[in-house]
Amino acid sequence: VKRAAVVGTGLIGGSIGMALRRLGWRVTGYDLQEQRALRALELGAIDEVGIDPLAAVTFVAVPAGAVTEAAKAALSLVGPRAVVTDVAGVKGSISASLRDPRFVGGHPMAGSEQEGVDGASPDLFVGATWVLTPTEGTSPEAYSEASSLVRQFGANPVPLDPRRHDLLVALVSHAPHLTAAALMNLAADAASSDSTLLTLAAGGFRDMTRIAAGHPGIWPDVVAENKEAILSALDGLGASLDKLRAVVASGDRAGLLELLERARQARRNLPVGAPAPESALEVRVPVPDRPGVIAEVSSLVGGLGVNIFDLEIAHSAEGGRGVLVMVVEAAYGELVRDCLAHHGYRVSLRSMGPVPELLEPSPAPAARGVEG
Amino acid sequence: VKRAAVVGTGLIGGSIGMALRRLGWRVTGYDLQEQRALRALELGAIDEVGIDPLAAVTFVAVPAGAVTEAAKAALSLVGPRAVVTDVAGVKGSISASLRDPRFVGGHPMAGSEQEGVDGASPDLFVGATWVLTPTEGTSPEAYSEASSLVRQFGANPVPLDPRRHDLLVALVSHAPHLTAAALMNLAADAASSDSTLLTLAAGGFRDMTRIAAGHPGIWPDVVAENKEAILSALDGLGASLDKLRAVVASGDRAGLLELLERARQARRNLPVGAPAPESALEVRVPVPDRPGVIAEVSSLVGGLGVNIFDLEIAHSAEGGRGVLVMVVEAAYGELVRDCLAHHGYRVSLRSMGPVPELLEPSPAPAARGVEG
Repeated sequence: VKRAAVVGTGLIGGSIGMALRRLGWRVTGYDLQEQRALRALELGAIDEVGIDPLAAVTFVAVPAGAVTEAAKAALSLVGPRAVVTDVAGVKGSISASLRDPRFVGGHPMAGSEQEGVDGASPDLFVGATWVLTPTEGTSPEAYSEASSLVRQFGANPVPLDPRRHDLLVALVSHAPHLTAAALMNLAADAASSDSTLLTLAAGGFRDMTRIAAGHPGIWPDVVAENKEAILSALDGLGASLDKLRAVVASGDRAGLLELLERARQARRNLPVGAPAPESALEVRVPVPDRPGVIAEVSSLVGGLGVNIFDLEIAHSAEGGRGVLVMVVEAAYGELVRDCLAHHGYRVSLRSMGPVPELLEPSPAPAARGVEG
Repeated sequence: VKRAAVVGTGLIGGSIGMALRRLGWRVTGYDLQEQRALRALELGAIDEVGIDPLAAVTFVAVPAGAVTEAAKAALSLVGPRAVVTDVAGVKGSISASLRDPRFVGGHPMAGSEQEGVDGASPDLFVGATWVLTPTEGTSPEAYSEASSLVRQFGANPVPLDPRRHDLLVALVSHAPHLTAAALMNLAADAASSDSTLLTLAAGGFRDMTRIAAGHPGIWPDVVAENKEAILSALDGLGASLDKLRAVVASGDRAGLLELLERARQARRNLPVGAPAPESALEVRVPVPDRPGVIAEVSSLVGGLGVNIFDLEIAHSAEGGRGVLVMVVEAAYGELVRDCLAHHGYRVSLRSMGPVPELLEPSPAPAARGVEG
């Protein structure tokens, strides 16, 4: 029986434990707060509470600021062919301080609104992007083992240079998160003197501020570890906003249209994480606002045995009736379309494939050293 | 038979025509582009193409920049007891230049991803907020007539001072829209040199940029008409972002947590447009990622005859499995919960009622003059 260890038995650590156990591994779990480890045991996320020096793989799933110390402790315990990996949302500083051939950094891009091991699930990572950040010092065997496990969890391993990872997530995750909070706080300030504001906050505003509803607990560590990239992303956003502000201020209609049209094209071509963009399709169905319509459409699709990877209702900027957008595997697109059309829906399919402007064939830098 | 006129037979004008006809009105429609008026006739949005000086109510549904001229033309034609209203997303300049007792400005906060009269529906406004902006010069009769019709369309009329309207929508609609475009353009710039960026753009980023996918056509007029308020809202957002940037730069963990926690509370207490916050409930259901689960949950709810006013899947900031959030009338909350619990779901209900911090009882200023 293969042995694994999980350090930190929260939402992610617990989910990893469950996924490993389902694959037949024996999992030992440790948490600074013993109650959490016991709860993980109770929920079947681990086989036993403790530390396992014989673990072939150790997942360090503690807050970003505590990863380096916990990973060093694990590396000092386990054998020469063991693998240690982590799950923190920042990778540069961690990778720099853990130059051990047995260590490979990781970042599963998955989560849940629920906190702690009670929200854990062995399916948490299915379809998710799981960044791995091997460095020059990482042994190919350690990378292969981590990558293979990630794939067995149902996730898509994406190798990436640790610093590059931090720059990119600052742009698409950290700075947007802070922006959502800034928008929400601005509105809350205004609403405190005029509550009508909230009546006017329709679908678009709700979409833009949704992530601000998340628990802020992880952010001090993330922000501390990725400060420079976040500041740079915020400055980039400031510059992008300044461009728009300038065309507004000068009344430059053509300039405004150009900036908005560019954003529109880019957004419409934004792929979803899973499945891979070239094998996914958007199924778009205009729907009226009546009971059961969402159920009907998704029932029909589910009845075909087709998984819906993502589902969103595209309101206009101001809400109201909308278009139901589902993401399915491209191979099933026509099946889905014909079935829905047969039931009276007007269905359109949109490819989510790579777009020349956005998806130039640039291989991820870190992959070369490992696989080349 | 009551007679109404619609000037501009696009998505909104066409939907108004359909809603009026369903209420038994005779509707005459005009559009600068005759083909659009003929298409509206064909789709049953109007009874006849033309101009009706005998119309009791005229809806001016043309782009914001053309409203004043079209409304003046209508006012010069119709009788002394007639009502003229519009639907533009900006109200200050229009109201200032139309000081006629028969005119009352309006802004239905509803739309569709589809453009033109082909996307029109008599149900477009059901549950939506419909701002009305009477001025001191507006006759109470004109306001009452407009308000009564709006209510008959299924919308919630919200009286508001025109300038105040513009300030508020700049904060919750116009500036957020520009921010979504700025974020998307920033990411597109970065993606042009590293396509991996798009792989990392998960649920949170998709939410924040969704409205940037909309047609930019209406924006030059909106921005021109509401320039000062938009610039002021962008400056407010800049200041709110600067506050966050400062706590990031200084490593002030407590300050960061405080700003994020404040945004979190405000977002969680954000009401939805329909039904009225005090009579709505959020039904929250953690769901696994498997085919048919969305269908199953919404089928069960639809099967009870309960309308789902809004449905969203709350991912964590990084996507993955999630919590299905439905908004239903509060009166049906327990029925829905018990039914879903009976089928094995863990359901929680959240009140969407007013929260002291955000919803102080401050009556909308414009309402006083009209109803007092």
